[in-house]
Amino acid sequence: MAENYVEMWKSIGMDIEKHNELLNILGQYYGAVYLTQKNRPKAMGYFDLVVSEIHGLRIKELNDSRKAGKKVIGAFCIYAPEELAYAADATMVGLCGGADFSVPDAEAILPRNLCPLIKSFYGFKLNKTCPYFQSSDLVVGETTCEGKKKVYELLNELIPTYVLEVPHKPDTRQGKEFWYKELEAFKAKLEEVTGNKITAEKLKESIELINNKRKALKRLSDLRANNPSPISGLDALLIYQISFNDDVKRFITKVNELCDELDERVRKGEGVTAKDAPRVMISGCPMAIPNWKVHSITQAAGASVVVEESCVGTRYFTNLVEPKGDSLNDLLWAMVEKYSQIPCACFTPNDARIKSVTDLAKQFEAEGVIYYTLQNCHDYNVEGVKVDRALKTLGLPMLKIETDYTMGDSEQIKTRIEAFLEIIQAKRKS
Amino acid sequence: MAENYVEMWKSIGMDIEKHNELLNILGQYYGAVYLTQKNRPKAMGYFDLVVSEIHGLRIKELNDSRKAGKKVIGAFCIYAPEELAYAADATMVGLCGGADFSVPDAEAILPRNLCPLIKSFYGFKLNKTCPYFQSSDLVVGETTCEGKKKVYELLNELIPTYVLEVPHKPDTRQGKEFWYKELEAFKAKLEEVTGNKITAEKLKESIELINNKRKALKRLSDLRANNPSPISGLDALLIYQISFNDDVKRFITKVNELCDELDERVRKGEGVTAKDAPRVMISGCPMAIPNWKVHSITQAAGASVVVEESCVGTRYFTNLVEPKGDSLNDLLWAMVEKYSQIPCACFTPNDARIKSVTDLAKQFEAEGVIYYTLQNCHDYNVEGVKVDRALKTLGLPMLKIETDYTMGDSEQIKTRIEAFLEIIQAKRKS
Repeated sequence: MAENYVEMWKSIGMDIEKHNELLNILGQYYGAVYLTQKNRPKAMGYFDLVVSEIHGLRIKELNDSRKAGKKVIGAFCIYAPEELAYAADATMVGLCGGADFSVPDAEAILPRNLCPLIKSFYGFKLNKTCPYFQSSDLVVGETTCEGKKKVYELLNELIPTYVLEVPHKPDTRQGKEFWYKELEAFKAKLEEVTGNKITAEKLKESIELINNKRKALKRLSDLRANNPSPISGLDALLIYQISFNDDVKRFITKVNELCDELDERVRKGEGVTAKDAPRVMISGCPMAIPNWKVHSITQAAGASVVVEESCVGTRYFTNLVEPKGDSLNDLLWAMVEKYSQIPCACFTPNDARIKSVTDLAKQFEAEGVIYYTLQNCHDYNVEGVKVDRALKTLGLPMLKIETDYTMGDSEQIKTRIEAFLEIIQAKRKS
Repeated sequence: MAENYVEMWKSIGMDIEKHNELLNILGQYYGAVYLTQKNRPKAMGYFDLVVSEIHGLRIKELNDSRKAGKKVIGAFCIYAPEELAYAADATMVGLCGGADFSVPDAEAILPRNLCPLIKSFYGFKLNKTCPYFQSSDLVVGETTCEGKKKVYELLNELIPTYVLEVPHKPDTRQGKEFWYKELEAFKAKLEEVTGNKITAEKLKESIELINNKRKALKRLSDLRANNPSPISGLDALLIYQISFNDDVKRFITKVNELCDELDERVRKGEGVTAKDAPRVMISGCPMAIPNWKVHSITQAAGASVVVEESCVGTRYFTNLVEPKGDSLNDLLWAMVEKYSQIPCACFTPNDARIKSVTDLAKQFEAEGVIYYTLQNCHDYNVEGVKVDRALKTLGLPMLKIETDYTMGDSEQIKTRIEAFLEIIQAKRKS
């Protein structure tokens, strides 16, 4: 791929040599983790192609659209209101932040005891190896965690970064009114950056578009409640990850085609794992591409990962934006309500997340939960206390894993997960 | 002291045995750090007495006032609007959170890689050795940092805890309107808890009272700009710490008496350190009583700590609440403006703090800055990047120290501070 895109990469200011290193690492890692899986659905071929072209063809599409006057808005969080971006005729893309590759570059400036995702994204902008950063006209950040919030200030020195403030008490009237005004201010910013007016008609259309993306992902997720699951946790995770980068309409079509195939598998009782594989939920911090560490260790240990209670998972697609009317005011208020329902651990208290974890455990017949925390993420780390208690009331064991993007602790995590699966097996017999 | 207060401590549910351990440790530590200082102002005698009675006489005063119907509101942060508490005829007190003593108790539940202040306060409530917690009718928290925010949820299970949401973008209209509404909601909560109506007259009075406390502390602080400083950094820090616990009116009188004595010292050119002692600013995280670690090491190394850019320092008393009229609306808006000027690192961006650090460095003729971060405090840790840059433009060296409440790293910190003071000395000669 590298040969065909070098000129394009140069034109967006990438560090070609360093980027080649990254592509080599990613290619090998993807091959080892994904292409060794057995019995994958045929329709995964499309998503394999997307990954292989994620720094190539997709970047070409984005930059072709930029030449035609479209703007690209980079984002990190499902609190970034993508409906507004599309209503301004812009494209929203997820930025790089899931690889250890860029962490050492970030650590030359940032404290080391910071979340790996934050160090990763800042390093990717510093070292110029993320083509999504290099193709973005604006970055939209949010105040969902203090590490990101403070690093956005430094990121803004490298690329224009607009920060939306997310209220942290989810249920107060003043908090919702504040969030409404933050959405209005972001709308004005997008209109300024794109030169396009966000009308009620445009916003209604984009709400429908993004709702359709969420519906397709929920359809995929719900299919995994079957036993055996017709698709692996790794493959589902990959699709959730790609949802932040691929062309939205094409992506919806391809996810639905995959679901058609999975429907057929379910009808036949076919799955990717043994029917008696332990069913595990993973709950916690987001896993940005190519963060496949815990899923791959869990699968290799013989478990079936059946659901991710995560921003790269159910938190993204569980609720839709459901307007009560067609005015801009109605549409924005529907967005306020929808986004207030995302149970981010930045909320206090975050009872909706506790309910979501227990509801999902029941729906997916999970036999245990791996609680996944990125290192130094206080919000998810502390909230684990309450999640653990709630799972205990259901009689479900929880394994807490706090880790970064390096592979140094893989063997230790493997040992802990194997012991955890033994606990699940023992509970079955008792 | 213990003999006289045991019955009182029992009556507020304290763990007497464990508390005796704590008192022994604190007494010895205070003696070693404070009473060994030479040439202290005579008026420090009052503050020594306050410390010796901080779990005794002061707790008796609070509980006598509770018997007479007054409520006590516990707080952790200078964002807790004390003017409202006093206007509701309540007393606001700072809660324990500065000692390693309670950290192991907290770590039985909380993650270990959390800020020591947070673990300390949660542990103090768990182990029932903080008489301020035990005497509080309500705790008021705030969303200034995510670790505190999430632990308040757990604290609320042990003692009623009300959380105020502080907007993090300090300069937006919607943020200020939101903060106004949060103050209104807290006012209603206080009226409910105390049974007292907060009138404009009462609020005006309490604003004046707290302004007078801030003025007295600023008078003390400004005196330290003299060379040599008439009071040690340790003694000044102690007074700032005590300001959260002592009776407000008495405290104001005693601070002003001390300042009268310091005025006299300044007139005579007397100070507590050699005139050529390196002048050091400490900037960063708050230091709750008995957190004297970095000050005592810095003083012992021969430096004069002349100012603390800290919430237990200048951030508390630099600005006053200055109403433009007498209505409740005027008074609350004046509070919104004042609190928005506290340059907490939770703000993004926090340009006011960068300006404050450089302004203070000039006012106090600091020759170097020790940047103090509590372990795992992302806000202050990351903001250190910008503070360092700003100080470089003034040609001032900065030493970053990230530490907890244990003494395990004291020798290492001592070595680093000594080397830092040598840099300052070398700069003088060059």
